Amino acid sequence: MRIDSTSELETNMPEAARKDPLVLFMPSGKRGRFPVGTPILDAARSLGVYVESVCGGRATCGRCQVSVQEGNFAKHKIVSSNDHISPIGPKEQRYASVRELPDGRRLSCSSQILGDLVIDVPQDTVINAQVVRKAATDRVIERNAAVQLCYVEVDEPDMHKPLGDLDRMKAMLEKDWGWKDLLIAPHLIPQVQGILRKGNWAVTAAIHRDMDSSRPFIVGLWPGLKNEAYGVACDIGSTTIAMHLVSLLSGRIVASSGASNPQIRFGEDLMSRVSYVMMNPDGREAMTKAVREAMNGLIGKVCAEGEIDRHDILDMVVVGNPIMHHLFLGIDPTELGQAPFALAVSGALQYWAHEIDIEVNRGARLYMLPCIAGHVGADAAGATLSEGPHRQDKMMLLVDVGTNAEIVLGNRQRVVAASSPTGPAFEGAEISSGQRAAPGAIERVRIDPETLEPRFRVIGVDKWSDEEGFAEAAAAVGVTGICGSAIIEVVAEMYLTGIISQDGVVDGAMAAKSARIVPNGRTFSYLLHDGEPRITVTQNDIRAIQLAKAALYAGIKLLMEKQGVDHVDTIRFAGAFGSFIDPKYAMVLGLIPDCDLDEVKAVGNAAGTGALMALLNRGHRREIEETVRKIEKIETALESKFQEHFVNAMAMPNKVDAFPKLAEVVTLPERKVMADDSEGGGRRRRRSRE
Amino acid sequence: MRIDSTSELETNMPEAARKDPLVLFMPSGKRGRFPVGTPILDAARSLGVYVESVCGGRATCGRCQVSVQEGNFAKHKIVSSNDHISPIGPKEQRYASVRELPDGRRLSCSSQILGDLVIDVPQDTVINAQVVRKAATDRVIERNAAVQLCYVEVDEPDMHKPLGDLDRMKAMLEKDWGWKDLLIAPHLIPQVQGILRKGNWAVTAAIHRDMDSSRPFIVGLWPGLKNEAYGVACDIGSTTIAMHLVSLLSGRIVASSGASNPQIRFGEDLMSRVSYVMMNPDGREAMTKAVREAMNGLIGKVCAEGEIDRHDILDMVVVGNPIMHHLFLGIDPTELGQAPFALAVSGALQYWAHEIDIEVNRGARLYMLPCIAGHVGADAAGATLSEGPHRQDKMMLLVDVGTNAEIVLGNRQRVVAASSPTGPAFEGAEISSGQRAAPGAIERVRIDPETLEPRFRVIGVDKWSDEEGFAEAAAAVGVTGICGSAIIEVVAEMYLTGIISQDGVVDGAMAAKSARIVPNGRTFSYLLHDGEPRITVTQNDIRAIQLAKAALYAGIKLLMEKQGVDHVDTIRFAGAFGSFIDPKYAMVLGLIPDCDLDEVKAVGNAAGTGALMALLNRGHRREIEETVRKIEKIETALESKFQEHFVNAMAMPNKVDAFPKLAEVVTLPERKVMADDSEGGGRRRRRSRE
Repeated sequence: MRIDSTSELETNMPEAARKDPLVLFMPSGKRGRFPVGTPILDAARSLGVYVESVCGGRATCGRCQVSVQEGNFAKHKIVSSNDHISPIGPKEQRYASVRELPDGRRLSCSSQILGDLVIDVPQDTVINAQVVRKAATDRVIERNAAVQLCYVEVDEPDMHKPLGDLDRMKAMLEKDWGWKDLLIAPHLIPQVQGILRKGNWAVTAAIHRDMDSSRPFIVGLWPGLKNEAYGVACDIGSTTIAMHLVSLLSGRIVASSGASNPQIRFGEDLMSRVSYVMMNPDGREAMTKAVREAMNGLIGKVCAEGEIDRHDILDMVVVGNPIMHHLFLGIDPTELGQAPFALAVSGALQYWAHEIDIEVNRGARLYMLPCIAGHVGADAAGATLSEGPHRQDKMMLLVDVGTNAEIVLGNRQRVVAASSPTGPAFEGAEISSGQRAAPGAIERVRIDPETLEPRFRVIGVDKWSDEEGFAEAAAAVGVTGICGSAIIEVVAEMYLTGIISQDGVVDGAMAAKSARIVPNGRTFSYLLHDGEPRITVTQNDIRAIQLAKAALYAGIKLLMEKQGVDHVDTIRFAGAFGSFIDPKYAMVLGLIPDCDLDEVKAVGNAAGTGALMALLNRGHRREIEETVRKIEKIETALESKFQEHFVNAMAMPNKVDAFPKLAEVVTLPERKVMADDSEGGGRRRRRSRE
Repeated sequence: MRIDSTSELETNMPEAARKDPLVLFMPSGKRGRFPVGTPILDAARSLGVYVESVCGGRATCGRCQVSVQEGNFAKHKIVSSNDHISPIGPKEQRYASVRELPDGRRLSCSSQILGDLVIDVPQDTVINAQVVRKAATDRVIERNAAVQLCYVEVDEPDMHKPLGDLDRMKAMLEKDWGWKDLLIAPHLIPQVQGILRKGNWAVTAAIHRDMDSSRPFIVGLWPGLKNEAYGVACDIGSTTIAMHLVSLLSGRIVASSGASNPQIRFGEDLMSRVSYVMMNPDGREAMTKAVREAMNGLIGKVCAEGEIDRHDILDMVVVGNPIMHHLFLGIDPTELGQAPFALAVSGALQYWAHEIDIEVNRGARLYMLPCIAGHVGADAAGATLSEGPHRQDKMMLLVDVGTNAEIVLGNRQRVVAASSPTGPAFEGAEISSGQRAAPGAIERVRIDPETLEPRFRVIGVDKWSDEEGFAEAAAAVGVTGICGSAIIEVVAEMYLTGIISQDGVVDGAMAAKSARIVPNGRTFSYLLHDGEPRITVTQNDIRAIQLAKAALYAGIKLLMEKQGVDHVDTIRFAGAFGSFIDPKYAMVLGLIPDCDLDEVKAVGNAAGTGALMALLNRGHRREIEETVRKIEKIETALESKFQEHFVNAMAMPNKVDAFPKLAEVVTLPERKVMADDSEGGGRRRRRSRE
């Protein structure tokens, strides 16, 4: 085989080789010339085109299906035809009669190249789907899972060659599949004899080829042909645990689901959980147990949904912020609660899943992505893997807003990362009428610039508050508070309509213009909804949002300085928060730097997507390990300029930075100076690690 | 450094190098030239001379002690003097004042070469004993244990470089000790932070460098300097579990002990235990639990004896026959009870000790030697490693007599092995007055060739039975039966005195000559002791011994044929049985082939010695794995000539084979033919796997 990517290459070939049929595999576009009679599967493998096979060419597993694209592919100088592939032989016929072989499909192990071909490796089915399409990102994940299923037929015991059953099986796995120096999970050793005999000397071994030992490991063993294996990708968030259940053979996502992190009962946010550990001798253990139990429960849920046995799960990838990461692994997170915020371990880790009490197959492995820094965890590593600043030329800003925002900025040349102590304001805490995103919460707000009258939308209600029938529709859920996305919007709208100054002060003079501006002690509030409860935005609420957004922006600014750039090319909001906020309002508020609004995208649970990528392709594990090693970590607390950036970022959008691209689409108010705009930084820093 | 083993080498050296001091290390005899100022420890290491060090040259662990041999070593052309080593410096002085530095001892890490030296690496003390002297064999085991203790001082956490504590520790272990790609036992991960802080950032890591993963593994971690680690070598016999507890740093045997194998309550011999498993659903589990508990108990015993904490045990090596091996590992041994006697696994295995419920350090490893064949187990592999037929030119026969005799025959060129179904006769079973070796058992027998009167010795009594005061001395223990060694002797003496023919028939005509020859149904018995009980040797007893010895000899004979030899050069009896029998009588009986009697040696628990070697030197693990792979296994049941050899071996010493060397020291009777000498083989074969 010769890889045939340029015609120049071809002209340098020997005459005979040039006459060999040319085979193009789609959608990878890889192609090469192969002698007549080469099995399609062998051709694909030699080009690095991923085609699964469990039975090893016995035409029994059906995993290696492909189809021929007929036609004249002028661009590739290929005339592809079903005449250029060997006719269906007895092995394929037998498979088609026993199982099912869709029209046009061929078993690549049993069909040979007779002439030029364009071969389609199916992407979209349970069988042979080579890719996973992630709705949120529409990204293709090439499959190269750590676990491979390998069917072998083992020699029966022979008194003349008294090699043990296991040893003969290993010999066959080497002979048929090329596995050298195979190890075996200890729990399987006592089972080998029984499984071999039950399978009448034919077994399927699950080989894990991404053990940290670097030697391949037999992690599962079944009598006869075992044709499916699953994996789990999991993101442990402080509030929510999110999980994908996926076929390791086809890449198909079988189920995706989430569950509350039960650690909430020990503390709402991260730092209160660290405090709980510090105050309670059994606190760490209790929280470790809680999160592991929740994960086991969630595995049960996705398995029920996908109708699979949890013991068919053979591989797992887990991400989480540093405190979730430590608690999940049973590590005391106390050090993360105080400077120097020392991680117990930062590198990627591998376990047997049972070692951390996860109830799946006894031979399942669990891979934890590396942590980037004390407050930039394996979740940020997952998001980085997913969004790939390191894979592109654009300067990408990746932000995951939580109690601590994790910020990554970079491109192919260089990636820097930091965390910023935004506090819980964006999540509705510290806000007088704040609440979690739940039915009844206001999620969208618009303020009429003339009348200063608001209109809003409530979660669970289709209509805007000024539309007919809203009151009736909202009666069921009520109007109970403001959630994170609406907090951003209402403050931004208050700024755009002049209710607050650039410095965030509610203009009491406006009270004359609108009854919505109401006095509240020495300051003024904005009455958003005069119901039960009465929902207002107070001066303190605005200060809380300013502190939060200033902390985030200051962190971003430090990273931009490290990179030596005065703008970013593209912005990704990761996490639930980012999915609901309107990029325009985030920018009006000065949460993020100026950028083409089309380049600001919410990417949902990017950490979970990264975990999924590392699950489906072990190459991505090496990629993120290497990337994290290279990422330069900035500790915002140690940067002398943080304070200055922070103070500037208290203003809306910013005291010094221009927002020219934003200004193209939004008319920003003239600067309007009022008293009381110096507060902030000092107080903020004291709470910085909450 | 240049290794300086020949003067020819020296003459080819550059002038400057030839002027470098010459250093000879004893007892290894390794030598080389090193520049003035080279630390002795570095010189030793570069020559491959094993000198332990835990602190890494900080002069705190005291493990690297050596002494200078002063004098003119003409043969080596070295004048060695204490003037040729640097004077004691402040680091050594500090060590000597805090700990103890015996007179003349130096810390090799802190003393430099100034001139030619003969350096003695102490062999005989707790500290720096490089060898283990095994009383039974007087063999030196060079040390190269799998576990090494490495002290490091770790950088404190730094917010600018947010590498985890574990990751920084690994970096320091690489920097100071050269360990690359270190892995860590999962249970240690949550402990790293606490241990580092407790040790004020100085810790000692136990590195296991013989993991099957081939990557070095941190298996233990202690704050500050940890200066001792232990290992256990264990032989699981069907009746007795034998154990050595040894310092992995000095090689000193701290304690050796044994305990009964509690599986005896499930079945006296191997096959009855297999039957127990087949008959009882929980039988396998119960026996696995029993042997593991016994091993834990025995570990407690040797630790108490050695006054060490069982959690300081970091490595273990275990051997046992195939059925003990399987039961210990939790593998069903049923297949070993029937043809084709399939081992579940034959290769060497590694575990975490806790995976098989052994209570030592949580990071301790356990190595099982490979099995050779279905009835030639890891114990035979251990004995092979110990006696080393593969390491020498002589043709060595190694026999471990049990219910199944394990036989190994070979030399440097080729080693062959087999098992032979001797049955339990040698252990006193199937013998009318047979019993285990215990007080009251007859252990030695002589018969007067003229009078046919016997004299004997009894276990627990010093005097022979014909000595004055024997009756009184024996009154306490009684004369209760015949144990294995006496069975051999009495039958051999009966043959030598003509009481039985070469074919094993008691000559009834002798009854006229002696009242000791008594009728017993259609046959005759020999009255050995007319007491309570009455102890006789019956015709059936003699048949049982003949069957047993014929089986053993036939197996040996097959191996000799495979090797193409008509005699062996040297014979080793391994196991308890071999320790008590007299080689001369064994040969008169024809248990073993003719050989110079000086070359027939009992080597005690050679299997346990082999386990100890594999514990103290991981090179021996590779050696025995490689040797076992190469050993050719003969299944006696499949060899057509077995029957013929068996029938010939029923005669004493043998119907066809000559015993010229035996004849030099013992007058063998003339051939004396009687009836009834064809029985045997067929019946024997049916019981062959009992």
